[in-house]
Amino acid sequence: MKLTVAQLAERLGAELVGDSAECRRQISAVGAVESAGENEVTFVTDPKRNYVHLGPGSLSEQSDGPFFKKSENGARTLTDVRRIARLKQSHAGAVIVARRIEGLAKPQLIVKDVNAALIEALNVFRPELKAAPEGIDPTAKVAANAKIASGAAVGAGAVIDDRVEIGESSIIGSGCKIGENSKVGRNCRLDSNVVVYHNCTIGNNVVIQANSTIGSTGFGYSFIDGAHRLVPHNGGVSIEDFVEMGANCCIDRAKFGNTIIGAGTKIDNLVQIAHNVVIGKGCLIAGQVGISGSCKLGDGVVLAGQVGLADNIEIGDGVMVGAQAGVSHSIAAGQRVFGSPATERKEAFQIIGLTKRLPKLVKQLKQLSKRIEKLEAAKDNKE
Amino acid sequence: MKLTVAQLAERLGAELVGDSAECRRQISAVGAVESAGENEVTFVTDPKRNYVHLGPGSLSEQSDGPFFKKSENGARTLTDVRRIARLKQSHAGAVIVARRIEGLAKPQLIVKDVNAALIEALNVFRPELKAAPEGIDPTAKVAANAKIASGAAVGAGAVIDDRVEIGESSIIGSGCKIGENSKVGRNCRLDSNVVVYHNCTIGNNVVIQANSTIGSTGFGYSFIDGAHRLVPHNGGVSIEDFVEMGANCCIDRAKFGNTIIGAGTKIDNLVQIAHNVVIGKGCLIAGQVGISGSCKLGDGVVLAGQVGLADNIEIGDGVMVGAQAGVSHSIAAGQRVFGSPATERKEAFQIIGLTKRLPKLVKQLKQLSKRIEKLEAAKDNKE
Amino acid sequence: MKLTVAQLAERLGAELVGDSAECRRQISAVGAVESAGENEVTFVTDPKRNYVHLGPGSLSEQSDGPFFKKSENGARTLTDVRRIARLKQSHAGAVIVARRIEGLAKPQLIVKDVNAALIEALNVFRPELKAAPEGIDPTAKVAANAKIASGAAVGAGAVIDDRVEIGESSIIGSGCKIGENSKVGRNCRLDSNVVVYHNCTIGNNVVIQANSTIGSTGFGYSFIDGAHRLVPHNGGVSIEDFVEMGANCCIDRAKFGNTIIGAGTKIDNLVQIAHNVVIGKGCLIAGQVGISGSCKLGDGVVLAGQVGLADNIEIGDGVMVGAQAGVSHSIAAGQRVFGSPATERKEAFQIIGLTKRLPKLVKQLKQLSKRIEKLEAAKDNKE
Repeated sequence: MKLTVAQLAERLGAELVGDSAECRRQISAVGAVESAGENEVTFVTDPKRNYVHLGPGSLSEQSDGPFFKKSENGARTLTDVRRIARLKQSHAGAVIVARRIEGLAKPQLIVKDVNAALIEALNVFRPELKAAPEGIDPTAKVAANAKIASGAAVGAGAVIDDRVEIGESSIIGSGCKIGENSKVGRNCRLDSNVVVYHNCTIGNNVVIQANSTIGSTGFGYSFIDGAHRLVPHNGGVSIEDFVEMGANCCIDRAKFGNTIIGAGTKIDNLVQIAHNVVIGKGCLIAGQVGISGSCKLGDGVVLAGQVGLADNIEIGDGVMVGAQAGVSHSIAAGQRVFGSPATERKEAFQIIGLTKRLPKLVKQLKQLSKRIEKLEAAKDNKE
Repeated sequence: MKLTVAQLAERLGAELVGDSAECRRQISAVGAVESAGENEVTFVTDPKRNYVHLGPGSLSEQSDGPFFKKSENGARTLTDVRRIARLKQSHAGAVIVARRIEGLAKPQLIVKDVNAALIEALNVFRPELKAAPEGIDPTAKVAANAKIASGAAVGAGAVIDDRVEIGESSIIGSGCKIGENSKVGRNCRLDSNVVVYHNCTIGNNVVIQANSTIGSTGFGYSFIDGAHRLVPHNGGVSIEDFVEMGANCCIDRAKFGNTIIGAGTKIDNLVQIAHNVVIGKGCLIAGQVGISGSCKLGDGVVLAGQVGLADNIEIGDGVMVGAQAGVSHSIAAGQRVFGSPATERKEAFQIIGLTKRLPKLVKQLKQLSKRIEKLEAAKDNKE
Repeated sequence: MKLTVAQLAERLGAELVGDSAECRRQISAVGAVESAGENEVTFVTDPKRNYVHLGPGSLSEQSDGPFFKKSENGARTLTDVRRIARLKQSHAGAVIVARRIEGLAKPQLIVKDVNAALIEALNVFRPELKAAPEGIDPTAKVAANAKIASGAAVGAGAVIDDRVEIGESSIIGSGCKIGENSKVGRNCRLDSNVVVYHNCTIGNNVVIQANSTIGSTGFGYSFIDGAHRLVPHNGGVSIEDFVEMGANCCIDRAKFGNTIIGAGTKIDNLVQIAHNVVIGKGCLIAGQVGISGSCKLGDGVVLAGQVGLADNIEIGDGVMVGAQAGVSHSIAAGQRVFGSPATERKEAFQIIGLTKRLPKLVKQLKQLSKRIEKLEAAKDNKE
């Protein structure tokens, strides 16, 4: 796909500022400020409304502190001055911005929400790929009583067990296995080699990336007669609408009832979610997070990369947990915690700061001790 | 499967206490206290003999402290009073308990070991699934000189290489690959897309869940002539009887000899076990643990979630390592350690506690300094 | 393969010291000092040039400190005395050493570089396996316009999409999926069930072990109109020559441009590399490391096991990061850091040491307080 700068501005609903010759330039891709060429559009996200990363792969809004990148006044965020300097050096053919930048030679597409415009621009210039497949590959093994909706696709070598249902326009990748009785809704995409065990339910518009495992038996053992005996897992997994999950994740089935991933929750790669966990709506779970058995997460919870939650705890709505934190107890709604064991974020940072001052504190202690000695000596002399 | 409460009591060898009409109620599942309906049986595990979780997915007995949930007198365990209050509100049709609870309207199934009875009840009410498959799927690719025992099954698209042996009643899932010369014993279950490289040995009654990888080449390089050169891994992996392993795990093969997982050891999801590691019998390895090369673990070791072990260390029998700990040196049998770097658990908690008191200590230091100043001033005045 | 000790010495270019009868002994394998039998050769790596492990599975040279094993004067390295004692007890038929050891009964193969000789010996005695396959398995599904070079192999059930190119002598394992337009160079090995998404480029001599995922969509969302909306990932992944990667890894594709893994970089199992990360040449990334979006790593960087990097930071050439460290800011070339949040290694160890002395410091503070009280009381008495 190619558009002139002017056409792209129209497509994005952007106000266009720039030389009219420059605005006829062909744009065919989005690029980073540093590397974009003259046929690419770049962008500057609004520092006042910036989504920021928090650990292996995760994103969230207006966070700050270690692993929570400062978005506005933090040292790690580029100042406007530096942003503009970089923009001026950029070879990009045009730039998407939230506010007009004075003295910039290249065309500016001024939009209300740079993030939304960026998504749109990336969609406009998405790589051209074959249309999604339809129908059942002849090498797939589909049970006679499985129901594959019209417009759904089942890839090469996939195995669809008894009584499975696959909804309209859903795509089951090559090498996938969908176990007995499991249901996949409409417009889902399960990429190659995803394994869904029996009795799991996947809603509509769900994406599960390659090599992820849904419905494995959880890690629940009782020590009886000298051996660890597995507690049977009679329950399933329920993944609600619009959940998107990365590659090589594991979601264990419940002992009874369901392990639940709430609607609109997004999960990064290599995440472990144990049996009977219940996750609310619109959560962000970054890479390599581990959530132990029977945890309950509210809505809008953000777990940064490599966080671990102990079992059976409750994490309130909107809680943000900093990268690598280890949470051993329940956290009330809205709190931000950090560290292992995790504590309230400000307290955690204060402790970290004071810990770094320990060498100085030890020195002070020695000096005080010497001053006391002198005072004691003086006292003894007098007595 | 449906049983009356009375039939279930008989099946579990339980003493039955309750109204005879209530005891004729049909039970068809196990449920949690909060959510069980009238056709479900719930349970209260004995707080005095409670298996407790320790991090992403793991279980163990009588642990306490961060990530080791207090089982008896800890704040996080429900007291009997609260348990009974919750039980009285429960809609469950019956309850499995270790001791008779007075004033409870619903039938009670009193058993000696609630955990064992729970396992039995979950087995009674397990979901009805097709019988395990038998025979070789026509789409599997099985080497002519491989030996597949009678009653064993090989799933669709699985690849069984030269001289592989699969024992009686073992099930190799769809999309699995079993490399040259590898042996799988009796009654094993390798779920879909498990990859076992060449020259690996898997005992009897072993479970390996989906997308796990056994026998990958370990991370061993020598820097020679300006490049990292791989140290060949001539050894294999030996997984002993009754080992159960989660999904998306990696067990590397040895450089020479075998990486060994001892009999009855249970491993959670996304666990990394490096080359030449030797793990004893009956260990519990929770989710996302990483064990570096050539570590030796004794019997009954418990590693909570996200623990990391440095290479070439020895972990004695019965050692328990708290969640997210980083163990950099050998640990003697029976010890409990916590933290990164890990230290003895009580010391670790004392340090964590004192660290939190740092703001107060700094304040005290300042006050002492002022008091000394006053004393010094007084002394100077006199002189 | 069997060689006499003398033949092996010749093969390794080693100076041979030993009884001539002993030197005619047959050797058929490499073994560890403790377990090697009389038909095995063992080795003692030179403590002055020793590659050491650093966390779940990783190796590096001359590191020290927690998770960085001391190689020379550290307590965890065997002294020469102990090494020699162990060697004398070893049943090995011969030993590869860097310096002649006096009073040792068994033949010694003295070489300049034990690590290089060990690699050679392991290659000599590598297990006999079938020759690598060639050609396209009839059950593979290869697009008509894909180009599979002569001598390349495509395994059972693999799926090769439109316009994919596979170079000479490369082996695509069973169950792999290579997405549209992706290119794999010469002499590569992708083991079973590896998934490579569309528009990815893999150089020559690359190894990717089983169940790894290349080119998954990264974890990038913008919160728009009350929901997390995926930022499209139009970019790809570029894996350069001689990269070797473990099992169950995830490398996300870029939003634009490429996620890049530099030539000769080695990656362990279960590693997460997020979108737009750029990794230099010859890096070592140990097991379960997580690298967040848009990080830039220089050449020769070493990340020990379970390290996490926050997004958008730069790690200079030759930086070494200790196991489980959490790096929240850029690190200059050549630095060694440790801890979470990570700081300069020596400072980190000093802080850890002082933290352990906190109980003593608290005691000292109390004693000082008492001494001051006494001084104050004495002063008050006088006044």
